[in-house]
Amino acid sequence: MRGFRTDLAMESISGGSGQVEGVRVRTHQVGSVRHTRIRIDRDRAAEMLGRRKGEYITVECGDLPHCDQRTRELITRLVAMGVRGMLPETGEVLVVGLGNRNVTADALGTRVVERMLVTRHLHQAMAQELKGRLRGVSAIAPGVLGLTGIETAELCRGLVQHVKPSAVIAIDALAAYESERICTTVQITNTGIQPGSGVGNHRLGLTEETLGVKVIAVGVPMVVYASTIAHDAMSRLVDSYGAFEPGQEEAADRLLKQVAEGFLGEMVVTPREIDEMVISVASLLSDGLNRALQPQLDTDTLHSYLHI
Amino acid sequence: MRGFRTDLAMESISGGSGQVEGVRVRTHQVGSVRHTRIRIDRDRAAEMLGRRKGEYITVECGDLPHCDQRTRELITRLVAMGVRGMLPETGEVLVVGLGNRNVTADALGTRVVERMLVTRHLHQAMAQELKGRLRGVSAIAPGVLGLTGIETAELCRGLVQHVKPSAVIAIDALAAYESERICTTVQITNTGIQPGSGVGNHRLGLTEETLGVKVIAVGVPMVVYASTIAHDAMSRLVDSYGAFEPGQEEAADRLLKQVAEGFLGEMVVTPREIDEMVISVASLLSDGLNRALQPQLDTDTLHSYLHI
Amino acid sequence: MRGFRTDLAMESISGGSGQVEGVRVRTHQVGSVRHTRIRIDRDRAAEMLGRRKGEYITVECGDLPHCDQRTRELITRLVAMGVRGMLPETGEVLVVGLGNRNVTADALGTRVVERMLVTRHLHQAMAQELKGRLRGVSAIAPGVLGLTGIETAELCRGLVQHVKPSAVIAIDALAAYESERICTTVQITNTGIQPGSGVGNHRLGLTEETLGVKVIAVGVPMVVYASTIAHDAMSRLVDSYGAFEPGQEEAADRLLKQVAEGFLGEMVVTPREIDEMVISVASLLSDGLNRALQPQLDTDTLHSYLHI
Amino acid sequence: MRGFRTDLAMESISGGSGQVEGVRVRTHQVGSVRHTRIRIDRDRAAEMLGRRKGEYITVECGDLPHCDQRTRELITRLVAMGVRGMLPETGEVLVVGLGNRNVTADALGTRVVERMLVTRHLHQAMAQELKGRLRGVSAIAPGVLGLTGIETAELCRGLVQHVKPSAVIAIDALAAYESERICTTVQITNTGIQPGSGVGNHRLGLTEETLGVKVIAVGVPMVVYASTIAHDAMSRLVDSYGAFEPGQEEAADRLLKQVAEGFLGEMVVTPREIDEMVISVASLLSDGLNRALQPQLDTDTLHSYLHI
Repeated sequence: MRGFRTDLAMESISGGSGQVEGVRVRTHQVGSVRHTRIRIDRDRAAEMLGRRKGEYITVECGDLPHCDQRTRELITRLVAMGVRGMLPETGEVLVVGLGNRNVTADALGTRVVERMLVTRHLHQAMAQELKGRLRGVSAIAPGVLGLTGIETAELCRGLVQHVKPSAVIAIDALAAYESERICTTVQITNTGIQPGSGVGNHRLGLTEETLGVKVIAVGVPMVVYASTIAHDAMSRLVDSYGAFEPGQEEAADRLLKQVAEGFLGEMVVTPREIDEMVISVASLLSDGLNRALQPQLDTDTLHSYLHI
Repeated sequence: MRGFRTDLAMESISGGSGQVEGVRVRTHQVGSVRHTRIRIDRDRAAEMLGRRKGEYITVECGDLPHCDQRTRELITRLVAMGVRGMLPETGEVLVVGLGNRNVTADALGTRVVERMLVTRHLHQAMAQELKGRLRGVSAIAPGVLGLTGIETAELCRGLVQHVKPSAVIAIDALAAYESERICTTVQITNTGIQPGSGVGNHRLGLTEETLGVKVIAVGVPMVVYASTIAHDAMSRLVDSYGAFEPGQEEAADRLLKQVAEGFLGEMVVTPREIDEMVISVASLLSDGLNRALQPQLDTDTLHSYLHI
Repeated sequence: MRGFRTDLAMESISGGSGQVEGVRVRTHQVGSVRHTRIRIDRDRAAEMLGRRKGEYITVECGDLPHCDQRTRELITRLVAMGVRGMLPETGEVLVVGLGNRNVTADALGTRVVERMLVTRHLHQAMAQELKGRLRGVSAIAPGVLGLTGIETAELCRGLVQHVKPSAVIAIDALAAYESERICTTVQITNTGIQPGSGVGNHRLGLTEETLGVKVIAVGVPMVVYASTIAHDAMSRLVDSYGAFEPGQEEAADRLLKQVAEGFLGEMVVTPREIDEMVISVASLLSDGLNRALQPQLDTDTLHSYLHI
Repeated sequence: MRGFRTDLAMESISGGSGQVEGVRVRTHQVGSVRHTRIRIDRDRAAEMLGRRKGEYITVECGDLPHCDQRTRELITRLVAMGVRGMLPETGEVLVVGLGNRNVTADALGTRVVERMLVTRHLHQAMAQELKGRLRGVSAIAPGVLGLTGIETAELCRGLVQHVKPSAVIAIDALAAYESERICTTVQITNTGIQPGSGVGNHRLGLTEETLGVKVIAVGVPMVVYASTIAHDAMSRLVDSYGAFEPGQEEAADRLLKQVAEGFLGEMVVTPREIDEMVISVASLLSDGLNRALQPQLDTDTLHSYLHI
């Protein structure tokens, strides 16, 4: 009864019954924050779960947009550490914000890019000493295919050839299976952006194979597809019935298929206050990324550079 | 199995089996646009349907935000006629935009108010001749209780005492039962705003009793509650089963109650492109309202006054 | 050669030669921040300076939007102290944001109101103990006359009668004489809003006489009128000439009058980055006001209530 | 006394006394709209005027944002004709919106790009017949150097190599000499973007030499530099004096230099309502460009594709 759409590795593995061979999971709880590291090592496991081989870190907390200052600080640090652990030690980094700035639930990437400390253009004017301390960072939110006519993946390939970063960090709004995940889970992965993921649903993949450099993807679920909600409600009902009459089972299957094929179309489920949540999560992620990229700057210096 | 939340009279009556005494319904189809007039005349009918006595006009079309120019013109005219028919012949009108401008799905009222032709303050400076042609209009989008600390209903009562309009037009984003209703149905009613309606869910009522003048409410569904979707999916499943075992029926009831009490909390279902849809629907409604209020001005003159 | 438009008492007094009787000025310098307290005690002084009798506090710093964390903290505290000193000890407070949210340079009042901790509606639900600690605050940004058809002063009078606060705090974007003042000076005064002040230029007065309760006005210059710049440039030139030929003096007078009567019309001078500056200054002012209104809450608690 | 900053060829030539050799100017008046075609043919003329050789079309009207429907239609058509005359007959076109979306006066390019009918990505899915009728159009607003770390010119070069358009259309907010030009003049030129032009002041050039394809630049003045206003005021005063004393002339020169070197820094002069003006002008320009690019589609079809 599973198989519904999610962009979270954590939900892919928790759907299955028991442990999959070739997948390692380690979880730590720090206060109200849970940190999970998932490694998918084998091709067979990757295929079974429908996810690429590699590392997936998730940082979870009951309510990212409204957590207290201390929890926020902890999450920021965990995000920074997670990203830093996947970045090459040296070389420039290009941050790419995916999604559509005019669609609230899909605007996370754009909002994060707006808050990045961009330094690449300053490098030439910098004293040698400062250069050693500041990593070169560029950032772009190119806009979705429907608004530009250019595939984000193609555009990024061109940029990478020109800017020559040692890694790309791609930020995206995700879709989850469980509505409780919305704005409560950060996923960081070194496997890049999976084709077809994201709120916009039609991304091409952004991976080391397509871009030629490491691609670290950072995302937070912003929606659940409405068809998932409907499907889930039916599943619960079916599960609770216990034994079936033959005719009933068929009826259930037929309806589940109807839902899967989308009588709810492209409807998405979001909290009513998604607008302010996106801003709050974007601020948290950009804090984490700026720290991961500029570990030599303290928070105050970062904020004064960014005027925020 | 019904009883779920909707702000549309049309959905309240279509839920029941057959015709309710004391409710008159007339429907016209013009091209792709359907125009329905519902009159609830009797207290008993009002009680059964959970709606106030009075008139409800709905204008429906497959897709308001994307319809062609001609259909748009037709809808605009039907909205203008519907509102005009409920307005007193003379006297000033106060337009109130309900909802929260910072929450996309709840911003319809605010967006409409931004596009109203406001004339009240010009009246003193006007030639007598023009005064006869321009109706005095004022407009305000006061913001929701959580942001102002002041109930919209209280605030409006104070304003009405001061501005002394002959009627209030209240604009609001609605919740529907069926997701197909989102951005496809305009409801115009002379019964005012029902307490508890709207996307924000916590409105006090705005009615002739509370404000002392006629209140015409104009709204368009922008969301379906996620619990409605889940409930609806379960209902379809149960309906399709035919006969039940005793234990099964209980299980279904229990789950439906769980959903009703909100395991989906305050989640709402919207189309992904809700942001641009709101702007398009607001433009259509304000066109209709401006025509209803200034029937002596042609469209071009209206647009040039409004600089749009 | 003076007389040009400014909303700052500090500029009114610095224009004259030497000290005016009936005006007391005290200045403190704390690091890079200058704090000035001006008291206009006599009617004659008020008339000469074109400002109402009362107290004017200004907090100045080279660059509010970009100052370091420590300076920002100091300014916030000085704003909080200045406002608190003028507020009645008890009673609710109504915060009114003046100006037009759709005009960047005039949007300061609106932006501050968005960030106020609003508590009035929570009072009924609060434990007695918390009530003693939280002051009742309501807030509204009603929009300018051209968009509502209702004078802000009239609207506020109605609100004050209903909400019954012990004081109103009015926030406004100001016009200055010197372009260096833009986003560098906060003015706090117990004289209310002077008629004709603000970026919008057409405010009615908001004062204790018109509203019946104390009115504290808080503002920051966001523009200089372009005619002021032109006039100032000419004045500098004329000043630098020394002696005049009779014909020259006439020519200068004629041109200055032309400028005064506005060949630059309603043009305003702003920094190019005014958009981000407004946000930064609004955040600073709202921090100061929230502290002045809720002295029992620490910064962290305030921020967590406000989700910022 | 001239020489001050303008991005309009029209102002460069009108500053000089009499006609410059190698410059041809033809003007037509249609109702309230003036159409001027300037050709700079010779290197010497280009050097004298500080503008590149080529063609400059200006379409002027008293007040673009508020003109009546008929005038708006006329301007749109003249813009469309001007752009079409400079475009290659066939081949894809890449539209680039320059400037900073977060700075109102610099956001014109971004706003125009948002309203372009983008078709490049549809081509593969199109029937052969429609392909012949729809020109391939892509569009991007990459953001300014300070926000991306990547020069717009470099980024465009990469894109052009990849997308392979036959021409680039670059949209930019301009600076004018005379404040009356703001939002009243459209300039269309086949010479591309001049280095150092635009509101942002720091553009690299975008020309046929740097990009390898034709570059058509379309712009509208949105600001006058405050130093220009001050300088202009002084010039008028000096002009009106007639004869000078020796000491006076020196004083004037000194002050003019002070202004030129920028005691007004990066201040710009704009109308107060610049926010709504930008939106209105962007809508007009995008209408003109969409018609120039898709001459086979009528206005209604264009609008229904664009959902506006």
